Parts: sequence; structure tokens; C-alpha cells
Amino acid sequence: MGRVKLFRCGHRAGSATMLLRLCRTLVVGFPRAVRVKPTPSRLCIPACSTNDSFKPQHPSLTCPDENSRTRGWKVVGALLGLGAALAYHDHRCRAAQESPRVFTREEVRSHNSLETGVWVTLGSEVFDVTKFVDLHPGGPSKLMLAAGGPIEPFWALYASHNQPHVRELLAEYKIGELNPEDKVSPTLEASDPYADDPSRHPALRINSQRPFNAEPPPELLTENYITPNPIFFTRNHLPVPNVDPDTYRLHIVGAPGGQSLSLSLDDLYKFPKHEVTVTLQCAGNRRAEMNKVKAVKGLEWRTGAISTARWAGARLCDVLAQAGHRPRETEAHVCFEGLDSDPTGTAYGASIPLARALDPEAEVLLAYEMNGQPLPRDHGFPVRVVVPGVVGARQVKWLGRVSVESEESHSHWQRRDYKGFSPSVDWDTVDFDQAPAIQELPVQSAITEPQDGATVESGEVTIKGYAWSGGGRAVIRVDVSIDGGLTWQEAQLEGEEQCPRKAWAWRIWHLTAQVPAEQKELEVVCKAVDDSYNVQPDTVAPIWNLRGVLSNAWHRVRVHVVP
Amino acid sequence: MGRVKLFRCGHRAGSATMLLRLCRTLVVGFPRAVRVKPTPSRLCIPACSTNDSFKPQHPSLTCPDENSRTRGWKVVGALLGLGAALAYHDHRCRAAQESPRVFTREEVRSHNSLETGVWVTLGSEVFDVTKFVDLHPGGPSKLMLAAGGPIEPFWALYASHNQPHVRELLAEYKIGELNPEDKVSPTLEASDPYADDPSRHPALRINSQRPFNAEPPPELLTENYITPNPIFFTRNHLPVPNVDPDTYRLHIVGAPGGQSLSLSLDDLYKFPKHEVTVTLQCAGNRRAEMNKVKAVKGLEWRTGAISTARWAGARLCDVLAQAGHRPRETEAHVCFEGLDSDPTGTAYGASIPLARALDPEAEVLLAYEMNGQPLPRDHGFPVRVVVPGVVGARQVKWLGRVSVESEESHSHWQRRDYKGFSPSVDWDTVDFDQAPAIQELPVQSAITEPQDGATVESGEVTIKGYAWSGGGRAVIRVDVSIDGGLTWQEAQLEGEEQCPRKAWAWRIWHLTAQVPAEQKELEVVCKAVDDSYNVQPDTVAPIWNLRGVLSNAWHRVRVHVVP
Repeated sequence: MGRVKLFRCGHRAGSATMLLRLCRTLVVGFPRAVRVKPTPSRLCIPACSTNDSFKPQHPSLTCPDENSRTRGWKVVGALLGLGAALAYHDHRCRAAQESPRVFTREEVRSHNSLETGVWVTLGSEVFDVTKFVDLHPGGPSKLMLAAGGPIEPFWALYASHNQPHVRELLAEYKIGELNPEDKVSPTLEASDPYADDPSRHPALRINSQRPFNAEPPPELLTENYITPNPIFFTRNHLPVPNVDPDTYRLHIVGAPGGQSLSLSLDDLYKFPKHEVTVTLQCAGNRRAEMNKVKAVKGLEWRTGAISTARWAGARLCDVLAQAGHRPRETEAHVCFEGLDSDPTGTAYGASIPLARALDPEAEVLLAYEMNGQPLPRDHGFPVRVVVPGVVGARQVKWLGRVSVESEESHSHWQRRDYKGFSPSVDWDTVDFDQAPAIQELPVQSAITEPQDGATVESGEVTIKGYAWSGGGRAVIRVDVSIDGGLTWQEAQLEGEEQCPRKAWAWRIWHLTAQVPAEQKELEVVCKAVDDSYNVQPDTVAPIWNLRGVLSNAWHRVRVHVVP
Repeated sequence: MGRVKLFRCGHRAGSATMLLRLCRTLVVGFPRAVRVKPTPSRLCIPACSTNDSFKPQHPSLTCPDENSRTRGWKVVGALLGLGAALAYHDHRCRAAQESPRVFTREEVRSHNSLETGVWVTLGSEVFDVTKFVDLHPGGPSKLMLAAGGPIEPFWALYASHNQPHVRELLAEYKIGELNPEDKVSPTLEASDPYADDPSRHPALRINSQRPFNAEPPPELLTENYITPNPIFFTRNHLPVPNVDPDTYRLHIVGAPGGQSLSLSLDDLYKFPKHEVTVTLQCAGNRRAEMNKVKAVKGLEWRTGAISTARWAGARLCDVLAQAGHRPRETEAHVCFEGLDSDPTGTAYGASIPLARALDPEAEVLLAYEMNGQPLPRDHGFPVRVVVPGVVGARQVKWLGRVSVESEESHSHWQRRDYKGFSPSVDWDTVDFDQAPAIQELPVQSAITEPQDGATVESGEVTIKGYAWSGGGRAVIRVDVSIDGGLTWQEAQLEGEEQCPRKAWAWRIWHLTAQVPAEQKELEVVCKAVDDSYNVQPDTVAPIWNLRGVLSNAWHRVRVHVVP
């Protein structure tokens, strides 16, 4: 989806195939086209209010009758560099002339496949885009993400849709209007502790609604080097607290002889602002593959519990220094407490070693911005910890309290979770004290395109994915195989070159491989190498563990080949 | 070989089996017995002169007629905590009474197996110890290391042999004397650049004589947490320089505005002395396994290109600071040059990042002591670099010059060697500029007992080995399988607990596993996990590379089982 290229109405039927090929060429050409450093303008996701992860920004497209589930989805003037060309040729023009039919949201929702027809809504209007699916320049799979629901959240991600001629084109597919009386009945009751959770982007694959845990689908995950905020993977352990930024205080326990701090947001803004691009990954990313070996306890994350953002905030080392903390001879830990808590009042908590917290080169942040915006509520508004190179679980959101202790956090999530064990350990024999809390993560990679079970044409296949390693270790190579690991080719790495020892962000990669015509099926495999030359293990079973964490074996997808 | 337990002459035949079992119990009991921090007294390898890696220390056992190959091997009062009890019962006492027969060294050398008889020498005396082999409390394999040659080098390692009753016992096996006129003809000519290389311990498995490259055999490698100097693996690229300590100068190029230093050994001793236990590993360790997949270019290292010592010296950061070097904004490198050089005068060279060199926590040393002794010549006398957590190739020996540069060392060994590549890269396609120089090494482990092809008894088998990871990452777990990797058990880790982020030394590990009686063969496998939860890959082929470096797949040995 490299450069924006638009095809206007009026092309004759004969040129349709050529146009389609051209569109596909643009799409395939994407990987090489984006090997430039992303600039802020390319990442301009709509500014979020402090109380909602996704809020209206474009009045002209705001519909007064929107219900609470969808009122946030608006088309905005975002400038994400993913031009989507709406090419078409001989479809029926059936929109303006007919008197509008009225549909319920339920009816729209039931039209979510090529079999049932593919319907989408924009504002109160309903469109049948079934015949446009195959013509969608971004590929059918991306359009299908919106099938049966509002299209605004996707247009918000890929803002080149927001142009008059695109809306004009869409208008030709209009089949009616939403029933203005059809409000979505609230599914969350007021007494539900999750009732106040923010709205989320419909593209997210939900692994758990309460607490909310969701990942972007693979086809969107590596579409951008920087993950747009609305589809950044979300890993919540508890209901999302609703924090008033005006009264918010961050409590920093002072060192002996130092002073404790109670920082407002404005106080935090006064520390030097530090920005860094960091990939966050959940320890449970790719747990689904481990679950296939033998059942594990945990959310069924696929390959999407990983995302990358540009974070900004105060450096933890600066704040700790102001509270009087200095390096210690003996090992010490910085403990974090969130403002999210369970019904007993127990807050989420975690800790990292003091040595990392005090090292300016480790760039640990008390972050208040994510991709140039205030943190979305799902990602810790107003302040979260960002610990580059370290597992997501330590990067406490809705941060309330920071203290330096001689021991690790006593939190359940530090001591009784997020640890790795031998495959021989089960729930009868596990001793959580015997394994260290996960901090740095091992080298990781996964394939995002093609997906498992997909069909590809013989000739060329483009394979795409991500790779990352913990501890600031740079990914130096990704090997890709289309024969299950017998032979390998090196993928092209995209994304920012990073500082030595501070490779906090992933690399997106791609490879175009030749598929022999006689081949019926491919087993596509990837494995990454980091700059300590650590590699991924070949198979899942020998790293299986009862919590299903640290799933970093070679990623494998099987695809069918059509001649 | 745990505690010393001696069985005196005079036991009757009937008690032999029982005694043997008892001896074996002592041996098997070793792993638990050594889980104490080694003290200097336990490591007291004979002090080496500055010009020889192994020199006479015990005049009473020095034989005046020793030739140049063996003059270095002397029994010394070393105190290594590996008592070896010489148990025996009904062997023939045939020593003192007979008039001595005279043998050549060649004749002795030909008696080096149970088939030919096992002969050894002590000074000028020759002994036939064939019938003692099975009774050796340290196990037959360790005695067999000395078969056909002098026994002094082994007694020097395991000093409990050096007791009157042990020599008395040995005397009973005497069969004659060495021919006093039988000097070993020098095989090295004076014009040979390697003619001045030091003597080496005969237990070393030689992979290359010129330059000298050799590794300790597996049965000795994990006998001690600290590797005795004489059997520490040796990786030379060029002839060993013969450095006069009185005229030696280390040249440190000063920073702009700083001053260059020309340091004598005494000057270096004036810097604060820093000691640290560090495991060194060659990038080519376990290359032999890679070579079996497909031929690679390099020395045929087995599992022994790794050893551990207690190093002492000046910290590189202190010396660089005195020369005016400070951290730089841009990446810079500390380049080292050795005093070893090829006929064109090109010296061995390598570099490490300046950031590591200047970090006091990285503990990079200009080392002048190894296990409490001046560096042996083979290990860099008088000064070498020790870079904890980093590949051996950067730890330049016979150090002559240190400079800070904007680029890595231009040495062949930095730029055209010691780099990892994809299995798809061959000598026609390799581009050495495309891969980073190896610095930190990946997680590693190997089995040292039992050895491949060995026979074990059903019931219990004790498996032993080592595990280590680069970059100061601690080994947190070793999984062992006796069924080729289908099921796993956790090994017991021995050796020193290490500081977080500074786990520079290996862990020795062992596991006693039950062997089912019906089992004919075992495939014993080990794999380690470090504290970033990186693991070893399952198999060798996918990490194969044309130089055969970074061979860290699961280590596998096959053993036969007798009921």
C-alpha cells in the first residue's frame, strides 16, 4: 500500500484487469517503498482525549444518531502513508436514485462474508461492497476486517480514504440507511467494573473482554513500522481506571535522606522530555502455538501481542535522582504500582532492577505520550512506565506509585506469574520461587503474511513479518524458508537503524521467494538472529511451559499453492 | 574424585569388588562435594616462570636427563582438591627385587591401550599399570590420558597423588628404566617460527600444532569449576612471542588533549588490582558438530574450546581514563594489538566497543594474573585483555598496543573472520561486511560425561556438563533428556552464584537419571536457558555457517546401556 494512486470513475470494462494488476503491483511494491524513517506526519493518529482511546475529530462526518459503541469512529484527516486506491470499473451504480431502505445494525452485522454479502456503514448510511472486495487496492483481507460494521475506524487508520472522490465512489454502493431508532443496547451494566472501559477499535482480535485483551490482526500488524494507537495490542489485567488528569498525582517514595515526591502531570512535564521508539511484547505472545502442544493456562495470543510506538516522557532516572536515589552496592529494585485494582483493592504491580532504572542509557521512561498523543486510556493514561527491551508486564500502566526496595515487587504478577519453567514442570510441581521473573525477552520473529491456510499463486510469493529481541539487542538477520526449514533465504530488513545496545524497536522484514509451479503446499518458516547471535529454537514442545510464556520457536505457516 | 580416601596395601582378593564400588561411589559423589566456592589454595597450580607455561617446581622429582619435550613435567605440591586414591588389592609385587630392564621412550609410547598394556613413566622409571587401570579411583579414563607417557603432568593437576604411599604403591608396578641415552630428537628446527613455543600439558587434545590450538579432554574439563592453567584451552593464531618482562611496554594511545602512556609491568601493577572469574570461549567451540553437517573451514574443536579462570589485572577503564579517554557521543572502538605477528609483521588484532571498555561494571581487564599466577606464555604473558561475556577472539594476548578509534579494528580477525552467516551463504557469496563481528556469544551448554559412544550400566547414570551465556547473562536452568529430547529433567547447577548482569563464568551441572533396564541405547541431550530466557536451538543444520562458528545447538551424545 505504498504511494497513493487513485483511479477515477469512468474506466471501461476492458481495462479492469490491467487496473487490478496495477493496484496489486502498488501493494506488492510496498515493502521497498517504506524503507524510510517514519516521520511524525506519517503517524498522525487522531488525537485522543484523555478519557477515550478514540474520539471524534472530524465534525463533518459526525452523525448525531451514533450510539455509544460507534460514536468514536470518525474519519479524520490523518496522514498515514498508506494510500489506498479505490479502483473499480463496471459495478452497478445504484445509490442516489433509489429511495433509501432502512436496516438494523443486526442486519448489517449479518452481512460479513462473501457468501452473505459484505456490508459496511459510514455514519448512518449502509453500503453493499461485496463486488468491491476483490478490487480493494489494500487487498481483500483488509477490507473484510470491516465487514458487517462501521468503516470509520479503518478509514481513520488509513486516512487517504478521507477524500471526496473516495466518498463519491462509496456512495455508488449505498443500499440504504441505518434505522435511527436502532441504538445498540448496552451490554455492560453500570455495576460492572468494566462498564467504564473505553471503546476499542473493531479490528482488534479480542482474546478476553474483561479484562480487555486484544491484538491487531496480522495483516495490519506489520503494515506500519509504528503501530497506530487504536490497534496497538492491549493487555489489561483489571478494569481500566478513569483517571482525572487534573487531580492525578504520581507518588515517588524518596530515598533515606532524600525526599518523597508527589508529582502532578505538570510537574512531570517539567523534567526533560525524552522520546524513544520502543516495541512492547507480552510474555504470552504466540501462546496459541504452545497451547497446541499441550494445554497451557493463559490468554490465546496469536502473533499480535507485540506492537511498536514512539513514547515520550520523563526519564525514570531523572525522577529517581530528584527523590534522592543513587546506585547501591547491593541489588535493589524499583517497584511500580498501578491505579488499576481488583475488588479487594490490590493494585497491579511489578518491578525492575534499580541498576536498569538508574542507567540513562537504558532509557526507562515515565511516559505520558504515545505516538505524539496523550496515552490512550487502554495504554495507561495519564502515565505509564516504558522499559525498553523488557517484557510488557513490567511496564506498569496508570502508574500511581514508585518505590525503591531491597526486594522485587511482592505483586502476584512479579512473583507468581511471568516466569519460565522446564517442560517437565506442571501445576503440581511448579515452584515459582525457583525461576527468575522475566525481564529481558529472548529473540523473536513471526510471519504476518501470508497467513496460515492462505492460498498463494505459484511464481512469486511475498512473505512479511516482524523480528525483535530483548535487552536492546538488535536483530541482525532473519532467515526464511519455504520448505519447512530445509533451505533458507535472507529477508530484507526494514525500519529504523538503531543505536548499538539500544535496539529497542522491532524490524519489519519481507522476502519475495520463487514458488515452483509443481509445489502444492509450502511450509513457510522464519527465524531471527540478534547481535549476541542468539537464535530461536526450532520447535515449540521443548520450550513448552505451563504458563505458555516465552513462545519464540520458529514461526511456521502452511499455505496452499495454486498454479 | 571427591574427598581423598586411601586404601592401603594388604586387602584380600575377596574385598576387591567392594573396594572398587566404594571408589566409584567416591567418584560419583564428586558433583555434590564441590559445590563450595573454590579457594585459592584449591587452585594452586605450580607457579609458572614467565617463559614457560609449565616448569619444574619440585627438585626431588626433577630428572637431569629429561629432554626438551618433557623437562617441564614435574610433580609439585599443588593442592588441587581432587584427591585421587590409589586403591589396589592382589596385584603382583614385582618392583624392587628385579634388576631393571631398559626401555626407549618409543617403546613406552607404544604401550598406550589395554590391548598393548598401559605403561607410564615417572622420572626415569617405567611402570606397567595395566592391571591398575580399572582400580583407579578417578576412573579408568583419566588414567588412560597418561598411557604411554609421563605421569607427572597429571599428578601436577591432581596433587593428592604426590604422597609417599602413592609413590610406594606405584613402585610395585615398576618394570624398568628409561634408556638414559634416549633423548627425544627435536622435531622443531631452529628456523621454525614455532620453535620457541612453550611446552604443553600432554592431556590437551591438539587440534593444530602450528599455531598451537588445543582443548582439554571432556573428562577433565568439568572436573574443576576453575580450569587449571596447564589444561586451559589454547587458541593461538601465530607463534607465541617470547616477551622479556623487564623491557615490556604496553602502549596506550592517548585521547586528543590526553596523553599517551608507555606502561611497564610495574606501572600496570600500580593501577588498582581487579579480580574476576571469567569463562572464555572460542567462537569455534563445538565446530566438529557443524562439520558433520557440511564441511566448514576451521579447527576441529570439540566441546573443550571453553575454560574458566580467575583473572587479575588493571581495569581497562582505569587505564583509558588515565590516557584521557571519556565516553563519546558517537560509537567508538577500542583496538588491541598483540605482540604476536606473522612473517610480514602483521600483528593479531581485534576491538571492542568503547562503551563496554569504559563501563566499570563490564570489568574489562588488562590481565597479568591467571589463577593467582603470572599469565602462562600460551595465555598471553605478560598481559592480555580479558573481556567478560565476550568471544575469546577479542581478548587479545601478548598485548602491545591499545588505541581508541572511530572504527573497529581493521584486523583480518575482526573484519574477515569471527562473524556469523546464514546457512545459505557459501564462500562464493559471503560478504563479510554484511554481518557484525561477534562480541557477546549466545547461550551454550555441552555434556562432558558420559562421552559419545560410551557404555553405561542400567540403573542410574550420572550426566555432567557445563553451561554458559554471553554478555553476563546467567544460566538459570539446564534441561537434560535421555530420550533424545522427548522428555526433560532439570540438572543441578554447581559453581559460584554470580552477580546479576555480571554472570561472567560458567555453571557446571550434573543430573543422575534412572535408566530403564530394557533400554539398549540412550540419546542424552542438554540445553541451557539464560536469564534473558534465550535457549539453544534444537539442531545444528539451521545454524550451520561456512566458518563453523557459534555452534550452540543442543548437545547430544549416544551411549550404550548394559544391563
